[in-house]
Amino acid sequence: MNQLPIVGGTPVVMPKEPLVLGRTFPVMEVFGPTVQGEGVVAGLPTYFVRFGLCDYRCSWCDSMHAVEPASVKANAEKLTAHQIVGRIKALDAGPEWVTFSGGNPAVHDLGELVKLFQGQGIRVAVETQGSKWRSWLGDVNCLTISPKPPSSGMAEKVEADLEGFMYEASLARPNRWQDCLKVVVFDDEDLDFAARVFQRFPTWPRFLSCGTVIDESLSDLANRYAWLLGRIAHDQRFAQARAFPQLHVVAWGHLKGV
Amino acid sequence: MNQLPIVGGTPVVMPKEPLVLGRTFPVMEVFGPTVQGEGVVAGLPTYFVRFGLCDYRCSWCDSMHAVEPASVKANAEKLTAHQIVGRIKALDAGPEWVTFSGGNPAVHDLGELVKLFQGQGIRVAVETQGSKWRSWLGDVNCLTISPKPPSSGMAEKVEADLEGFMYEASLARPNRWQDCLKVVVFDDEDLDFAARVFQRFPTWPRFLSCGTVIDESLSDLANRYAWLLGRIAHDQRFAQARAFPQLHVVAWGHLKGV
Repeated sequence: MNQLPIVGGTPVVMPKEPLVLGRTFPVMEVFGPTVQGEGVVAGLPTYFVRFGLCDYRCSWCDSMHAVEPASVKANAEKLTAHQIVGRIKALDAGPEWVTFSGGNPAVHDLGELVKLFQGQGIRVAVETQGSKWRSWLGDVNCLTISPKPPSSGMAEKVEADLEGFMYEASLARPNRWQDCLKVVVFDDEDLDFAARVFQRFPTWPRFLSCGTVIDESLSDLANRYAWLLGRIAHDQRFAQARAFPQLHVVAWGHLKGV
Repeated sequence: MNQLPIVGGTPVVMPKEPLVLGRTFPVMEVFGPTVQGEGVVAGLPTYFVRFGLCDYRCSWCDSMHAVEPASVKANAEKLTAHQIVGRIKALDAGPEWVTFSGGNPAVHDLGELVKLFQGQGIRVAVETQGSKWRSWLGDVNCLTISPKPPSSGMAEKVEADLEGFMYEASLARPNRWQDCLKVVVFDDEDLDFAARVFQRFPTWPRFLSCGTVIDESLSDLANRYAWLLGRIAHDQRFAQARAFPQLHVVAWGHLKGV
């Protein structure tokens, strides 16, 4: 409906695009339909919105273009919540999910955006490292918390951040069947970290994600995944943990926008 | 406890191994600890028991040694339920799950075995094609029903079998959070079959498993998986379906015993 009620005999034609009002967010990419590669809803069709900016600097980050402020400033579009929803609705139909990725989406106040998507019948999945709690994280349909293991170089930040985040998350999300703790694993030290996290927060579903290195071959990935499966199969600390490769990397490698 | 109560002053020493009494089952392999490669508990550590015999002859069967009666007769061990549990307990510790595979485990009466494992604190996952209902399938912890798609050459059998099986399964398993319908997909005809199955049984969780061919390369598998993800991402019939590669094949190829 692009017309206001007639006033004084003259129809007032509204612009088809809503005016850009209100807060904007730095958006690096809006893409899909594609398939979720990680976490408890892995394998499901989804759209993605990748937000810029992050409070961590992981050594093996696969999305550094969405992390460094200079890159974000140069490459991000500033979009309102309504504009982001519009971008998704303009894509091909298919998925019933949208995934907020980053960077760390929890550095932004995305509560309005969550409500807008859900009002359109689109469920919201979020992946965040468990550093900054936001009340809107209580409203999403799937919360994947991925505490960064020692190989990331972020051990001190994790030490400072995770406990407070998990306290808030555990209060806000009593039903966790679509939530998980997901730890990326490159080596035995990462595995020990994962075991401690799982033991500390035993009521959260447990995922291990096999680490990947940009530009490595598929067989390198497969070999590291085989190593990970061999480790967890024999280790009772991981009897309730599920180990996956990054499904999108198996399918497409490290291409962007898929 | 290896001694009966003393009778007439003479202790009766019982053999340490229980006598082989009662029904036996044809067992092709008992192995683990390893990791579940498919279905709703994919990625979890598990033991496996592969039973011989099957009522289907799928063209791409990856376990034909457990299907053909001559092969089963030549290669299976005949084990009682107690002996099977003993074989698992003799393996390294680790997993909390055992998976019954085949062949089709539902051609056997495994109710006693399910109870024995569960009494030891081991959860039971079963994969079966949905042809022969057994009341013990109501007692397992995870039921993966894998109706065979047209590429298997079993369309007529599926037509005859699946409806009755799903009727019994739906009565016996009202809580399906660890159950699923899992359809193997090689091509578009298989995808259409999966869509019809999902539509007919909408309350069952939905998985698509990317078909694999023995001895194909990892990149062939990755290419077919990429094809599958591209198909489902844009097809609303699969908005609630999760597509996976066979995780054990990603890690190890088609080795047996892993």
